[in-house]
Amino acid sequence: MVLIDRLQAQISAKKSPILVGLDPLFDRLPPALKPEKPSREAAALALYRFNEALLEAIADLVPAVKLQMACYELYGPAGLEAFERSVVKAKALGLFVIDDSKRGDIGSTAALYAAGHLGAAPLGRLSGPLAAQDFVTINPYLGSDGLDPFYKEALAQDKGVYVLVRTSNPSARQYQEAQIEGRALFEQIALDLQAQAQAHQGSCGYAPFGAVVGATWPAEAAKLRAMMPNVPFLVPGYGAQGGAGIDVMPCFDGAGQGALINSSRGIIFAFETEKTHDFAGAARRATLAMRQDLIDAFKQTGKLPVGWD
Amino acid sequence: MVLIDRLQAQISAKKSPILVGLDPLFDRLPPALKPEKPSREAAALALYRFNEALLEAIADLVPAVKLQMACYELYGPAGLEAFERSVVKAKALGLFVIDDSKRGDIGSTAALYAAGHLGAAPLGRLSGPLAAQDFVTINPYLGSDGLDPFYKEALAQDKGVYVLVRTSNPSARQYQEAQIEGRALFEQIALDLQAQAQAHQGSCGYAPFGAVVGATWPAEAAKLRAMMPNVPFLVPGYGAQGGAGIDVMPCFDGAGQGALINSSRGIIFAFETEKTHDFAGAARRATLAMRQDLIDAFKQTGKLPVGWD
Repeated sequence: MVLIDRLQAQISAKKSPILVGLDPLFDRLPPALKPEKPSREAAALALYRFNEALLEAIADLVPAVKLQMACYELYGPAGLEAFERSVVKAKALGLFVIDDSKRGDIGSTAALYAAGHLGAAPLGRLSGPLAAQDFVTINPYLGSDGLDPFYKEALAQDKGVYVLVRTSNPSARQYQEAQIEGRALFEQIALDLQAQAQAHQGSCGYAPFGAVVGATWPAEAAKLRAMMPNVPFLVPGYGAQGGAGIDVMPCFDGAGQGALINSSRGIIFAFETEKTHDFAGAARRATLAMRQDLIDAFKQTGKLPVGWD
Repeated sequence: MVLIDRLQAQISAKKSPILVGLDPLFDRLPPALKPEKPSREAAALALYRFNEALLEAIADLVPAVKLQMACYELYGPAGLEAFERSVVKAKALGLFVIDDSKRGDIGSTAALYAAGHLGAAPLGRLSGPLAAQDFVTINPYLGSDGLDPFYKEALAQDKGVYVLVRTSNPSARQYQEAQIEGRALFEQIALDLQAQAQAHQGSCGYAPFGAVVGATWPAEAAKLRAMMPNVPFLVPGYGAQGGAGIDVMPCFDGAGQGALINSSRGIIFAFETEKTHDFAGAARRATLAMRQDLIDAFKQTGKLPVGWD
């Protein structure tokens, strides 16, 4: 079974299209995890310990996690090590892992990023440094010769990508709505992505070439879903960024498939709202609440996947 | 003196607007530097040794170097360590350092990348992990709330950024020429960048907010130079990508200032063309040849900076 079919099978088995974002912030770690003497190494290790406990608490509830690279890179080599250890831990728990690095560069450099983030073998005999993750997010501003090396590497390694199509931030429209032949730029990027996806779909009808589509633009999400029938969506903006279950429904197809809904801070920092030290338990409860919210929204829109009731 | 004035002073003192790209590729390292037993750590160390010798060979000829992050990230934590060591070495030799990471994300995440790459103090008492470099390259696709955190951090830390405006790759036009009110997207990004730069120029007339403008589009470079009088250019595409000294002249202002011309593989792999083991000497010779080419082009276009003859 290819990657996208295995991911789809996990979503169905767990009845959960939830993508938990492991975006830890040192300042907001539970006091018990904070090192006495701060250093890059100690901070990075604390991030890993936080992730480890979170992963164990939620692994049976979600198919996948997303790691925001910026949170790790901040701590240099030790941060990247914490990133890698978290990926390995997530994979050991049977989770799919999205490396949210938003990389992008011109052709030959894009190929290096693709090798680094999608697990090729840069030294011939070695596996890639970040070889365990399944997907990487990528930025389309440089056009097809910045994207093609990632598509190529993904297919070669049975990995996947999510292209930034429509981001969830307020100023997304500033440049993403520039026009190309009567279409918004993000729509053109969507069409080009669909053309790639159409040629590489798995049995589930989706390709390992996905789109990041912000939950903060529901009307556009419906249009983009129709434009990209073979492209799975990664949907940020649920929870902390303001989206609710009902808002993300347009990202799913008629059968309630084709999207992973990301929540990061709303889950991993749920212990702050709960005012508890049990951060892992709070994350589990927040994940369960999110799942219920999504299932309610599926029912309300007639999109509940077959077998989920 | 602020960063951009110090950089300008170094360009003038060395009579050289050359930015050498330290973009090492393991497969192309001189045989003497290749480790017997390849591992991520050994490969990363070899990259550092290569950079170290190159830096010592060219430090008196150029004001700045650029490190392509993809080349290092490929080797995981050890790669990032090689990156950091190379930055520290370059700074010790009095060079300015551009971290070519092309980062970009939404607001709060952009702030984390800005902290990591522009040397803020993420733990309060510690300096940032990649604290030594002077500039970072950034991707504008997410709009102003993805860019503002970098501008803010740059000003706070006396660092700088280069925004990808017009890249040097063949498919740059695919999305960068989408239209906004009769302008190409890259022109709109240029105008928005100039608006920021105008408010923060140093004594030299330029701001620490620069633009990446590919040498492969000379006609557009002239237009962009006129649109962004306070924005210094980082110009890739010289040498290996096909541009020559005469092609990059439109990137300079009338006084022959306001641009750094990047050459990477044409310099660091000059030993391959020369068929010599003396890679450092070959890099030095290639840098001298590039300087002569630029000076000839300055003379030919009447742009030779005052005092350079």
